[in-house]
Amino acid sequence: MQTSYIEIDKYGTSDLLKFKSKEVSESLKDDEVQIDVHYSGINFADIVMRLGMYRDAPPKPFTPGYEISGVVKKIGSSVTRFKVGDQVMAGTRFGGYTSSVTLPEWQVLNLPAGFSLAEGAASPVTFLTAHIALHEFGRIRKGDKVLLDCATGGVGVMAMQMCKDVGAECIGLTSSESKKTFIESYGAKAYTQEEFEKSGEKDFDFILNSSGGKSLKAHYEILGKSGKLTCIGVQSAITDGKANIFKVLKTIIQIPKFSMLKLTMQSKSVSGFNALKYFDDNEWMKKNLPKIETCPYKPHIGEIFAAKDVSEAHRFLEQRKAKGKVLLSWVK
Amino acid sequence: MQTSYIEIDKYGTSDLLKFKSKEVSESLKDDEVQIDVHYSGINFADIVMRLGMYRDAPPKPFTPGYEISGVVKKIGSSVTRFKVGDQVMAGTRFGGYTSSVTLPEWQVLNLPAGFSLAEGAASPVTFLTAHIALHEFGRIRKGDKVLLDCATGGVGVMAMQMCKDVGAECIGLTSSESKKTFIESYGAKAYTQEEFEKSGEKDFDFILNSSGGKSLKAHYEILGKSGKLTCIGVQSAITDGKANIFKVLKTIIQIPKFSMLKLTMQSKSVSGFNALKYFDDNEWMKKNLPKIETCPYKPHIGEIFAAKDVSEAHRFLEQRKAKGKVLLSWVK
Repeated sequence: MQTSYIEIDKYGTSDLLKFKSKEVSESLKDDEVQIDVHYSGINFADIVMRLGMYRDAPPKPFTPGYEISGVVKKIGSSVTRFKVGDQVMAGTRFGGYTSSVTLPEWQVLNLPAGFSLAEGAASPVTFLTAHIALHEFGRIRKGDKVLLDCATGGVGVMAMQMCKDVGAECIGLTSSESKKTFIESYGAKAYTQEEFEKSGEKDFDFILNSSGGKSLKAHYEILGKSGKLTCIGVQSAITDGKANIFKVLKTIIQIPKFSMLKLTMQSKSVSGFNALKYFDDNEWMKKNLPKIETCPYKPHIGEIFAAKDVSEAHRFLEQRKAKGKVLLSWVK
Repeated sequence: MQTSYIEIDKYGTSDLLKFKSKEVSESLKDDEVQIDVHYSGINFADIVMRLGMYRDAPPKPFTPGYEISGVVKKIGSSVTRFKVGDQVMAGTRFGGYTSSVTLPEWQVLNLPAGFSLAEGAASPVTFLTAHIALHEFGRIRKGDKVLLDCATGGVGVMAMQMCKDVGAECIGLTSSESKKTFIESYGAKAYTQEEFEKSGEKDFDFILNSSGGKSLKAHYEILGKSGKLTCIGVQSAITDGKANIFKVLKTIIQIPKFSMLKLTMQSKSVSGFNALKYFDDNEWMKKNLPKIETCPYKPHIGEIFAAKDVSEAHRFLEQRKAKGKVLLSWVK
């Protein structure tokens, strides 16, 4: 069977991504499901690994991608939850940028009620990341004051809906004035980064930081009593798709250290996580992946690119042009 | 009115505590309640400030003590919640080691149902400290795995009951083999410190650390995914009531710093708090102090000393002889 896929065989700018084809065997193990992929989700981590800055990425050449949606083409003899023709989504750990994928049954999921295939591909990573942040680290609840430093991204869109759901007050930041109404449409208060710095907003119970660098220190300062700061990335190290080594080093140097003594004197909490470490843990995934099937939060599809335009899709995301999720389409 | 009280006028060992008497005015402001104190709670922080190691203590000479219980003797003209003869408890910020106290009405509380006066004096600090730790920082819930490094102390007794209440699995540590059955009586699993180190127990969702020093690093290592470590003290710096400056410095040096980068790579959370900073915040106290009136968790009274034997009482606590709470009695 002829299969198209995208490969990273050289680290660097987005134009180095390779669109390829190969012949793939159609044979399945008993517990496997073969899916004709319609959409592949793009994540910021894919850009980080394209730049060669991702420690846990496979050795080159490899195919990135954590999530797909599509139609079941074939099932193994012991598969019970799916039949040929079912619309499904799946978590893949790497290997998601492909027109056809074969996965063990447990990694394959039914679409949440009312979800399109595009929405299915846009949900696994954003939902689980927001879930870990807000419901494992923050354990947010009614009345909490929450700050999202990247509210218009895929994770931000899920997080804003989770805040509304539990009755937490949510403030969302964005780099651009024009995205403020988008944030407000989710019931959150919107500020540009510049406005926020002047706003005097403080006493946060939970802050989700995806920028890293010096913003961490600033966010630590505006935590309230028992407030929690959680870091999920270092997006500020990456500008316009280039891994400027000086900028990366500067960002890493600016990542603060916190002494337990200071935390204790100031009654604050700091933490961070890499969602991919969770996705790597089969036991955790078996328990948590099925939660997406009943996900009540719709992702926002920012843009869908034809798979062959993957370089353009990466550029769109790394230039912070996206609102919500960016997808690749294998049927476009 | 002749009033007895205990004063710290010189930092050092427990025998330096002064038992004194003075004439105090009986006049009250409209919103004040005068209480004949029956019991004063002793906290580890009182020992720390007796040693002169507590930054936020008042200047010498001063009377320590955060909590009392007793009988209402007199009320101001606007007081509505209490009448003369009522059994009450109260949070005092310093000044609790005294036979008579006058406080604004909002600081005075009814005893929880079924509580004796001794149990009333034993509850405010332990309940609020355990509450902040488990329900603000840890936000524990059913199925969590919780470690308490000082399960037999006043806070530990409250914390064990909170764990049981929400359905969290609780492991309690103690310095002495003989206190293990006490821990087990609260439905927790008991280990001595030595046994625990060999046990291989790990994957904790929440760890409450009151020892500080090098135990923090060890506890960080055994956190599970999204696990939270919260530090509430540096009891390991104090041995047998002496502030050995070398031991204190060593303990402080052993308090680790955590880089946000490391936390993010390892998906963990670190925090700490000083409960007294919360007690100092009137707005917080007005909201949270009343929670003690419906406290469903009984404190364990370890020992009651006559107020004049306060030096002995401090020694008893600092030598880790107590199980549960140590009180001073003004009626004994």
